[in-house]
Amino acid sequence: MSYTLVIGNKNYSSWSLRPWLLMKHLQLNFTEVKVPLYQADTKQQLLQHSPVGQVPVLKTQDTAIWDSLAICEYLTEQHGNGWPEDSTQRALARAISCEMHSGFSQIRSLLPMNCRLRIAVTLESEPLKLEIERVLSIWKTQRQQHGDAGDFLFGGFSVADCMYAPVVLRFESYGIPVEQIHRDYMDAILALPAMQVWIAEGIQENEVISASEIYADTEEVII
Amino acid sequence: MSYTLVIGNKNYSSWSLRPWLLMKHLQLNFTEVKVPLYQADTKQQLLQHSPVGQVPVLKTQDTAIWDSLAICEYLTEQHGNGWPEDSTQRALARAISCEMHSGFSQIRSLLPMNCRLRIAVTLESEPLKLEIERVLSIWKTQRQQHGDAGDFLFGGFSVADCMYAPVVLRFESYGIPVEQIHRDYMDAILALPAMQVWIAEGIQENEVISASEIYADTEEVII
Repeated sequence: MSYTLVIGNKNYSSWSLRPWLLMKHLQLNFTEVKVPLYQADTKQQLLQHSPVGQVPVLKTQDTAIWDSLAICEYLTEQHGNGWPEDSTQRALARAISCEMHSGFSQIRSLLPMNCRLRIAVTLESEPLKLEIERVLSIWKTQRQQHGDAGDFLFGGFSVADCMYAPVVLRFESYGIPVEQIHRDYMDAILALPAMQVWIAEGIQENEVISASEIYADTEEVII
Repeated sequence: MSYTLVIGNKNYSSWSLRPWLLMKHLQLNFTEVKVPLYQADTKQQLLQHSPVGQVPVLKTQDTAIWDSLAICEYLTEQHGNGWPEDSTQRALARAISCEMHSGFSQIRSLLPMNCRLRIAVTLESEPLKLEIERVLSIWKTQRQQHGDAGDFLFGGFSVADCMYAPVVLRFESYGIPVEQIHRDYMDAILALPAMQVWIAEGIQENEVISASEIYADTEEVII
C-alpha cells in the first residue's frame, strides 16, 4: 500500500498532526507532502489534492480521503490498532473524538497551535474556560478509568489520543493550569518519539503565519 | 438490544434527525426521549443523559453515546448496512460525512433547520454561497457516479444521507435554487417514510425557538 499524506505547516496545523501521529503509531511508510498554509497559492495547491482544498489529505492508490477523522477510520480499518477493542469503549472513544472533531471552537480560535510558543495566559473568557474544563474532565475521567492499562485515554494509544494531541500542545504553549493526572497524560503524549519529531520539525520551519501568532509580541495576555 | 435515543425538537434539531433516520433505516426498535431545546432547564435535563449536555444521545444497556456521527458508527458496527460495502467508497462516505460534521458553519447558522418554514431568500453572503455550492457539488458528484445503483449519495441509503438530510430540509425551507439532479436527490430524501413522519411531527410541535425563527416575520430576505 502506497500512501501520501498532505499536511500543512507542522508548527501550526493541528488537523495535520492527528492522522500523521496515527500513521507513525501504525508504523506505516508514507510520503509526506507539505503545503504551507495561508500563502497566496495555498488553496490552488490544495485543490490539486482534494475537492475541499484543506489539509490533511490521505492519498491512496485508489482515492484521496480528506478530513482527519475519516483518514483515521480508514487507516484503522486497513491496519487495525486504532480504536479500543471493546465495542463500548470504542463507541466512547469515537464520541470523545467526534466531540473534538466538531467542537471546542473557543480553544481552536483563541489558543491556536504554535509549537514555538511558551507563554502564560490569564483566562477570563467564560466560554473558553468551560471548554478547557470539559477537555480536562475528559482526560481525568479516562485516565482514572484506564490508568492501569496504559498511559493514554483508553489505556493503550488510540485515535482518541491523536485527536487530543494538538490540545496537549496548546495547553503547553499557553501554560493552562492542570492537575497532576492531566500533567501525566500530557507528558505521555509529549514523550512520544513521533511527537518529538513533529515538534522539532515545526519549530525549525521558516514560515510565520500571522493569524496564529496573535499573542507573540504580548507580555501580559488576558484571554 | 434496548435503545433509547434522546433528541431535541423535531422541528429544529438537525443533529437529532441524523441518527434517528439511521435507526429507522435499520428498522430498530427504540424509545424516543424528547428534550425541548433552549428552555431554562434544557442543559440540566440533558446532563442527566450524557456528560456534554447536548442532543443526540444514544443510550444502550451499557453506556451513553453522545455525538451523531459516533452513534451512527456504533449502530453500523452493531447492525451493519450503514456505510457502503466497498472500502474506498466507505472512506469517501466518511469524508463527506465528516465534512458535514465539522463544517458548513454558514449554512448551519444562517439557514437554521425549521420544518415549518417555506420562504425564498436572496443570497448575497459569499461565504454562505460557497458552502451551498460545495454541498451541491458533493450531491452532483455522488449522484453522477452512483445514479445507476439507487437514489442516494452512494446508490443505496447510507450514513452519508443521514448527515445531509437536514441540509435537504434547509434548502427546501429557504428555496435554494438547484439543478434537476439535486432536485431528484432532495425528493428521494423527502419521500422517505421516516422523513415524512419526522417532518409531520416537527410541524405539530408547540415549542417555538426564537433563535431558529430569524426569518419568520420577514417578507423579503437577503442573506
